[in-house]
Amino acid sequence: MGKAGKSVKIALVKAPAAKPTAKPAALKPIPLKAAADDAPIIALNLPMAKLSPAMAAYFKKCQEKLGFIPNVLVAYAFDMTKLETFVAMYNDLMLGDSGVSKLEREMIAVAVSSQNRCYYCLTAHGAAVRQYARYPLLGEQMVMNYRAARLNKRQRAMLDFAVKLTAQPGNVEEADRERLRRAGFSDRDIWDISAVTGFFNMSNRVASATDMRPNTVYHGQAR
Amino acid sequence: MGKAGKSVKIALVKAPAAKPTAKPAALKPIPLKAAADDAPIIALNLPMAKLSPAMAAYFKKCQEKLGFIPNVLVAYAFDMTKLETFVAMYNDLMLGDSGVSKLEREMIAVAVSSQNRCYYCLTAHGAAVRQYARYPLLGEQMVMNYRAARLNKRQRAMLDFAVKLTAQPGNVEEADRERLRRAGFSDRDIWDISAVTGFFNMSNRVASATDMRPNTVYHGQAR
Amino acid sequence: MGKAGKSVKIALVKAPAAKPTAKPAALKPIPLKAAADDAPIIALNLPMAKLSPAMAAYFKKCQEKLGFIPNVLVAYAFDMTKLETFVAMYNDLMLGDSGVSKLEREMIAVAVSSQNRCYYCLTAHGAAVRQYARYPLLGEQMVMNYRAARLNKRQRAMLDFAVKLTAQPGNVEEADRERLRRAGFSDRDIWDISAVTGFFNMSNRVASATDMRPNTVYHGQAR
Amino acid sequence: MGKAGKSVKIALVKAPAAKPTAKPAALKPIPLKAAADDAPIIALNLPMAKLSPAMAAYFKKCQEKLGFIPNVLVAYAFDMTKLETFVAMYNDLMLGDSGVSKLEREMIAVAVSSQNRCYYCLTAHGAAVRQYARYPLLGEQMVMNYRAARLNKRQRAMLDFAVKLTAQPGNVEEADRERLRRAGFSDRDIWDISAVTGFFNMSNRVASATDMRPNTVYHGQAR
Amino acid sequence: MGKAGKSVKIALVKAPAAKPTAKPAALKPIPLKAAADDAPIIALNLPMAKLSPAMAAYFKKCQEKLGFIPNVLVAYAFDMTKLETFVAMYNDLMLGDSGVSKLEREMIAVAVSSQNRCYYCLTAHGAAVRQYARYPLLGEQMVMNYRAARLNKRQRAMLDFAVKLTAQPGNVEEADRERLRRAGFSDRDIWDISAVTGFFNMSNRVASATDMRPNTVYHGQAR
Amino acid sequence: MGKAGKSVKIALVKAPAAKPTAKPAALKPIPLKAAADDAPIIALNLPMAKLSPAMAAYFKKCQEKLGFIPNVLVAYAFDMTKLETFVAMYNDLMLGDSGVSKLEREMIAVAVSSQNRCYYCLTAHGAAVRQYARYPLLGEQMVMNYRAARLNKRQRAMLDFAVKLTAQPGNVEEADRERLRRAGFSDRDIWDISAVTGFFNMSNRVASATDMRPNTVYHGQAR
Repeated sequence: MGKAGKSVKIALVKAPAAKPTAKPAALKPIPLKAAADDAPIIALNLPMAKLSPAMAAYFKKCQEKLGFIPNVLVAYAFDMTKLETFVAMYNDLMLGDSGVSKLEREMIAVAVSSQNRCYYCLTAHGAAVRQYARYPLLGEQMVMNYRAARLNKRQRAMLDFAVKLTAQPGNVEEADRERLRRAGFSDRDIWDISAVTGFFNMSNRVASATDMRPNTVYHGQAR
Repeated sequence: MGKAGKSVKIALVKAPAAKPTAKPAALKPIPLKAAADDAPIIALNLPMAKLSPAMAAYFKKCQEKLGFIPNVLVAYAFDMTKLETFVAMYNDLMLGDSGVSKLEREMIAVAVSSQNRCYYCLTAHGAAVRQYARYPLLGEQMVMNYRAARLNKRQRAMLDFAVKLTAQPGNVEEADRERLRRAGFSDRDIWDISAVTGFFNMSNRVASATDMRPNTVYHGQAR
Repeated sequence: MGKAGKSVKIALVKAPAAKPTAKPAALKPIPLKAAADDAPIIALNLPMAKLSPAMAAYFKKCQEKLGFIPNVLVAYAFDMTKLETFVAMYNDLMLGDSGVSKLEREMIAVAVSSQNRCYYCLTAHGAAVRQYARYPLLGEQMVMNYRAARLNKRQRAMLDFAVKLTAQPGNVEEADRERLRRAGFSDRDIWDISAVTGFFNMSNRVASATDMRPNTVYHGQAR
Repeated sequence: MGKAGKSVKIALVKAPAAKPTAKPAALKPIPLKAAADDAPIIALNLPMAKLSPAMAAYFKKCQEKLGFIPNVLVAYAFDMTKLETFVAMYNDLMLGDSGVSKLEREMIAVAVSSQNRCYYCLTAHGAAVRQYARYPLLGEQMVMNYRAARLNKRQRAMLDFAVKLTAQPGNVEEADRERLRRAGFSDRDIWDISAVTGFFNMSNRVASATDMRPNTVYHGQAR
Repeated sequence: MGKAGKSVKIALVKAPAAKPTAKPAALKPIPLKAAADDAPIIALNLPMAKLSPAMAAYFKKCQEKLGFIPNVLVAYAFDMTKLETFVAMYNDLMLGDSGVSKLEREMIAVAVSSQNRCYYCLTAHGAAVRQYARYPLLGEQMVMNYRAARLNKRQRAMLDFAVKLTAQPGNVEEADRERLRRAGFSDRDIWDISAVTGFFNMSNRVASATDMRPNTVYHGQAR
Repeated sequence: MGKAGKSVKIALVKAPAAKPTAKPAALKPIPLKAAADDAPIIALNLPMAKLSPAMAAYFKKCQEKLGFIPNVLVAYAFDMTKLETFVAMYNDLMLGDSGVSKLEREMIAVAVSSQNRCYYCLTAHGAAVRQYARYPLLGEQMVMNYRAARLNKRQRAMLDFAVKLTAQPGNVEEADRERLRRAGFSDRDIWDISAVTGFFNMSNRVASATDMRPNTVYHGQAR
């Protein structure tokens, strides 16, 4: 989603005590950009449901901090349980504590999405890499071919693992984990790299299956 | 996980009012089967954390209804947020309301896992298909080659979509969605098929990346 | 075919002195199982011919020792020359003397058939591995992903060779043979591994091309 | 092997009443060409055994009719059972009665071997196509890319089936068989096409696994 | 190279009557950007030769019209014959007369380069698509997945052909050409589409083989 | 094109001072072989244009030295700029000075064309390898599977690089270049290997896209 640099973390459990009366109307001012390319947001006819208090608060926070609601959230908003579980998992994986930095997690997101050729995730997370890295070219390289980036050994090993896990999941073995350990990753880090890789293999498919369109605003960010 | 036929649904939010004092010790009697093949459960050294009350209650329910705790839950239990978000998403996707039946969702799980050659998911969800279908061969066919099963047009279209989305996600287009609609699926069904396909593309990779071992009990179920 | 543990070896040349008068009628009591999944046995209309004396004797032996006639034999029985040459080659390769054990040959059969996604051979030879190994899980692992099995170096090298020879035959070179030699295989063993791999690359294709259905009895064997 | 145009058919069963005393010495005059490229014949150290009477007679016939012993026969001659079963199956499939002509069977052999990049079979059977077709270019086209040949619909359908069965055996289904039927093939023909395709998927792998070298004489035949 | 919108066409033959005395020194003021990412320009040690008069004039024109010398030209400049033949072919194909518009030719360039994951060409020609199209998103979509772009039938047919020709050149047949004709392309257009596709399959490989780095200026163009 | 052994080099720049009056009629006696397989030369209707003086002279030279005009030249002759740039690049790459011998460049041409299954280039350049090598089998081996050839380390490394660059261009990295350097190639040689590989990845696609037919005379050359 590319909330890069602005840590819009919201734990599902600790969701702000949004009162049941918090009207989704509060979201009205949000201009769900109906620009050429991202309308409709997905190719399925699934009207947005009434936001739960927690999700209304979350959308409000997105609007304040990012200036827009990432389309993936609007897409999931036809069903509050699906939206909440997606947000909870996403926020934990991409913004939670980890020995793998937020930038590195976004690099994985983009390298995986490049393998799967996912337009939505390449756009949204490409922007996130550009922002986090403060080096716009890195975002482009993750989109185009991560092997073209001049990475240190740690990050190269991390992406080699993520891409192999994406392309040939059944071939990953102890030797692959060992390569990560030799590059300095702990067992917990290996879990996180695997979980982020897995998450984007999920998201890429939901986005491709529904023709999900990224907010056009991403394209111009952090160039 | 294959809790087939026993609907151990537990909504994370509505989690049983487990008192904070519910001791994980309550789980002691659970024999985390240390049999040959599923010990250790994963190849990473990530010791189980203290279960949150919700998760302690959930594990207890699993033990009562299934007779064991699926290893995937034990694997995620090193971190309560990760365990809870995984359980919440899994339960919504596989046990929640949908126009796609629970058996059909398990068929997708296995056909996708066959494509990705995931030992854990093929074992656990192969057992689930055998149980739900009351026709053990169907489970075998999903594992080996879904094209060998004698499916009706609806289920064949569903699996063709799921497998294409798994193998070539970037090539899925409107024509593929149209094929599902012609086979009788609604737009909401298409979302569910895509979300289940996505979920197992995630789980397959977490399982393969960590060498997750299925509980040996699955192998003998519903033969 | 999975005549595991029962060594129904019959050399074509030394075929029992079955008299020309041995009536195929003797086979009448054989209930060619017309169960749901394996009828018809193949998708081609090729009626069974009159069994030659040697083949009538062989079918009788199968019936006595296995309790059924493997469907692949019934499929080939439209033509005695084809049936006899198939049986002769099969029996020599899978039951003849070799430095590669019968279990190992069956492991190759299943790992190759998994690569080719052959429903017939995975079912019949998966059962054979379960029987020979006296460890049912090994059969499942060969079907699902041989890399998930905890193999010794010898057997791992053997299956790596068989799977590479199956997936990329034109890339096999001296270095691959050397790897087998270092794992303890003789040149004669390498021939046998190659011949068994080749044989199942043939059988998988004949079975897939004709939609050959395995006897349903295999599914429940040696679980 | 490419005994094209010279029908060296020899039924294993009706093997000439070669006396046990038929000395392999009788084969001495056969110059097993030790030219640059086909010596040694395979990369495994498997010395030729004493030929059985049937095989001695068969080798003699080859020598007389072809002017040489195809190297594949010499390769298998370390073991008489293996040699005899290979010869029996080969002769039945490639020279026996069938609605698929001998030329067409050789075309399948080469198109399959091209897919698998098998040097031995492309050389030997490429020569056979050149001979049978009396149109040398057809052999080249089968080796290089069968789609470049100007084939009639029947032969194109036949090769499309053989190549799909080679490259993606698990994807072959009723629709593929129907395509052959519409092109005029009977169910028996479909078996034969499948069996020849299967046979070369076996032979290609035995040849590649052992680095089998074709007799150099093939290269110049029927240009 | 992405000289989009500025038609720096220069015919090799009609090369401006650059006097032999035109010193390459004239190029001195050109700041061959030694920024982080594009220095060195290639991973091979091939020092720039003295520019021929025609090439000196061409470089001067590039500098004037683009503001920089595309790195690919500097890379080829170690040998004047190679530089001149590359420039002549490039200018004819990408800037010469054709029924396929310059934008469409650039779209082919990027869709092909995405298939081959060529960092140099995706960067330089992605910028060209953004410029020609006056719709920056189109450039991103060509880079990420041309199927995500909302194309008319003509352009979709064109890119489907170019990508098939890139990924499976040996499978292109009359039916593919017919599809282009039905989409309104003439035989001459088909040649041009094929030639541009071929050219970038060449350039992608030269760039990848040498780790050619695009001028960093491209990244920010026409966003 | 396979002008092997006859170095028909013609530099576009130093093109013989063919007078503008040199009538293409001079080419009349050239029997553009209308034999079964190479007529029409391509599947597009693109009539030959009036040859430019330089190209008329070049065709005449081809006719004198080769005895025929390679069909690829006739195919490009619908447009003089396209023909001239193709000829200039071809002659520089395949006949110009290089540390990579002419035979080696032809070996690359054929190994690349085998990967891409290009009938035209395999035929024309297969003949060239046979001629240059004075060892006809080498041409066959390049066509069928270069790994079957008994190459020295230098040539094997060269072809491994060319084939990887053809099949997975985006995966080529410094380690691949280092392997070439260790095999004795200079940086300039690496450029030449890459450029020839690139060139045939272009030509293969132009030939496949247009169903270009090789002159039948190639098939019989240098057997």
